[in-house]
Amino acid sequence: MLQSQLFPKTKKESPKDAVSINHKLLVRAGFIDQLMAGSWTLLPLGWRVINKIIGIIREEMNAIGGQELLMPLMHPKEIWNETGRWESAKEVMYQLTDARKKEFALSFTHEEIVMDLLRKHVNSYNDLPVAMYHFSTKFRNELRPTGGILRGREFLMKDLYSAHQTEEDMNDYYEKVSDAYIKIFNRIGFDSYITEAAGGVFTENRTREFQVVAEAGEDTIYIKKDTKKALNKEVFEGNLDDYEEKRSIEVGNIFPFGDKKYSEKMNVTYQDRDGQSKLVYFASYGIGVTRLLGTAVEVFHDERGIIWPKSIAPYQVHLIELKKERNEEIKKKAEEIYDKLQNAGVEILWDDREVMAGEKFADADLIGIPVRLVVSEKSGDKIEWKERNSDKTELLQLDEVIERMCTREK
Amino acid sequence: MLQSQLFPKTKKESPKDAVSINHKLLVRAGFIDQLMAGSWTLLPLGWRVINKIIGIIREEMNAIGGQELLMPLMHPKEIWNETGRWESAKEVMYQLTDARKKEFALSFTHEEIVMDLLRKHVNSYNDLPVAMYHFSTKFRNELRPTGGILRGREFLMKDLYSAHQTEEDMNDYYEKVSDAYIKIFNRIGFDSYITEAAGGVFTENRTREFQVVAEAGEDTIYIKKDTKKALNKEVFEGNLDDYEEKRSIEVGNIFPFGDKKYSEKMNVTYQDRDGQSKLVYFASYGIGVTRLLGTAVEVFHDERGIIWPKSIAPYQVHLIELKKERNEEIKKKAEEIYDKLQNAGVEILWDDREVMAGEKFADADLIGIPVRLVVSEKSGDKIEWKERNSDKTELLQLDEVIERMCTREK
Repeated sequence: MLQSQLFPKTKKESPKDAVSINHKLLVRAGFIDQLMAGSWTLLPLGWRVINKIIGIIREEMNAIGGQELLMPLMHPKEIWNETGRWESAKEVMYQLTDARKKEFALSFTHEEIVMDLLRKHVNSYNDLPVAMYHFSTKFRNELRPTGGILRGREFLMKDLYSAHQTEEDMNDYYEKVSDAYIKIFNRIGFDSYITEAAGGVFTENRTREFQVVAEAGEDTIYIKKDTKKALNKEVFEGNLDDYEEKRSIEVGNIFPFGDKKYSEKMNVTYQDRDGQSKLVYFASYGIGVTRLLGTAVEVFHDERGIIWPKSIAPYQVHLIELKKERNEEIKKKAEEIYDKLQNAGVEILWDDREVMAGEKFADADLIGIPVRLVVSEKSGDKIEWKERNSDKTELLQLDEVIERMCTREK
Repeated sequence: MLQSQLFPKTKKESPKDAVSINHKLLVRAGFIDQLMAGSWTLLPLGWRVINKIIGIIREEMNAIGGQELLMPLMHPKEIWNETGRWESAKEVMYQLTDARKKEFALSFTHEEIVMDLLRKHVNSYNDLPVAMYHFSTKFRNELRPTGGILRGREFLMKDLYSAHQTEEDMNDYYEKVSDAYIKIFNRIGFDSYITEAAGGVFTENRTREFQVVAEAGEDTIYIKKDTKKALNKEVFEGNLDDYEEKRSIEVGNIFPFGDKKYSEKMNVTYQDRDGQSKLVYFASYGIGVTRLLGTAVEVFHDERGIIWPKSIAPYQVHLIELKKERNEEIKKKAEEIYDKLQNAGVEILWDDREVMAGEKFADADLIGIPVRLVVSEKSGDKIEWKERNSDKTELLQLDEVIERMCTREK
């Protein structure tokens, strides 16, 4: 991608109302744009990061047998009445009435919709277990949507749902998903913790939350020293001396509903091997996809800008050409590097703009692509290699650059 | 994918209310499920086809410099008031009020949202031209959502928007998009026609529509004999003898708005080379993504089921094992074929169920995957190869199957 064509340009100033780091940096660097409180456009750079995140989650969901689909966002009132959530979740749910006085809810979650799918399509034990997920928009009427893209009124979520014959099978799968979640957060580059917490409008059972430690976190968790286990403040019991208190961001949660909460209310049953009608065991599992974008910035940044982990960087290489006036030789060299890296499958952003070196370097630090390459009169035949999270620069041949890019682990 | 695990199973009967072919076949074969009138879940098979369609569109949009992003679905009333469409498009637009009496619209299109992005981020001639697109959900309060997935109240659309300094530049790009659209429909396998039509709530100018001939079409077009040109009924002028009347489905449309319709009303300007403030020339371009899924079924089917074109088939190969009782040898052979084809990068659905041969064959014809492979006692060492759109069967070695699959054009 040529930076001269990239929409939009970076900004020198943060938005006036921005408090959180992800809000400031993602807006200045051109990753997101605010339409209204809690509502964001994912601009081309931001959308690339989201797609990387989606790619990682998709692989891990498929690996545990999840089947991807896409469910509607506007739902009939009747279906939400079956579980009582039309009333009980009214505060968080956007509701609307059409010209013919028919009432609808916008998706704040999809349990009821999945249950409706299951009761239509699951007949016998042969049809279970089944796990399905989608990446889709959620609408939640947050009183105060703050923290940049961490808490929106409209946001992207991955939600997985599973249905089982027995509680044991549900619990086994619940552990598989829990492991997959930790893998996902590790692959992004996060240090994540599992906590036990209360389930809110979702369930009266305790649920498991996935937490990433970050200064901007809204949650308080207690991490058991020398372990990966943690407790949520609400349910903390124990001796504080054995724990470290840290602020954290909740990036995922999983709910083992069992056969009562939804199956009984919506009459989701299957015929077992003896021809008996049984209630389905049901669980749901969420990851905040856009929230992960914001969390990454909260965790990976310095005073100059974002420092993307390789796994979710919008591009792998930021190529900068520095030339006094119209130096055609340097332009040509940059073009050669750009073409050869692209042909080698490397995602590359080329700063081909006619602006000062200082502006190019500042933008590269702000945008935060993992590797910066500079070609200039100074670098001569070679190319300057610098990684975003290091101050070390090296001079390399083009072949060496390609070799390094193609052998770097993701 | 193992068919025993695929959600959901096929159905013997069409839905009672289904009239159109895409409705009947897509529901029976397990590609879509109706939540309410005009609202569909894209089930795993359907979602795979949608992703193939998205992949083709994305390639062609990127090839003409489109930048992908994602814009919000819920919009503030104020922004729709700027162009008057809060009132003028009220019939088609879902509108809602939150607990604090703030009013919102659900996305029935995104021109106003793009214009808001442009006026925030475009300053000078240096920032133009720019073209951006997204795949996103549209909500339209259709009075009668009929025709299966052809006309929904909630559906997926690809919308592209472009902004230019001059009318000439806009018109040039308009032609590029027009060409890209024809390429997209060709790649899917459609025979498509361009017609000129009136613009509805979008513009008073004539717009260009892209039409695919199909019996179930709601539009009437007049195709000039021996050309690829056609006229929409509304604007038809000429001698009927030179034209063939055909029913068709509108799958795309493009609107050259210019600088009045949106730019003037929303004050979207840039500074030209002389420092003068000028209005931006603006155009928008849509493709109905879920509608393409339905259109493909309307065009490509027979009395037994769907016949997917290779370019958008959910899987490339449907492997069927036929065995009397528990014949472990055939199971093993099927496993080998499945593994080897998967390793060669072939997308394969394996019917591993313990059901009768007749049911397997009927399901394969219904689902419509391009190549069917059968292993049975009869096929011996070899594998039976049959294409969905042919009655010819051949016996091949596994190596020959792999060779064929890897060299078939998409």
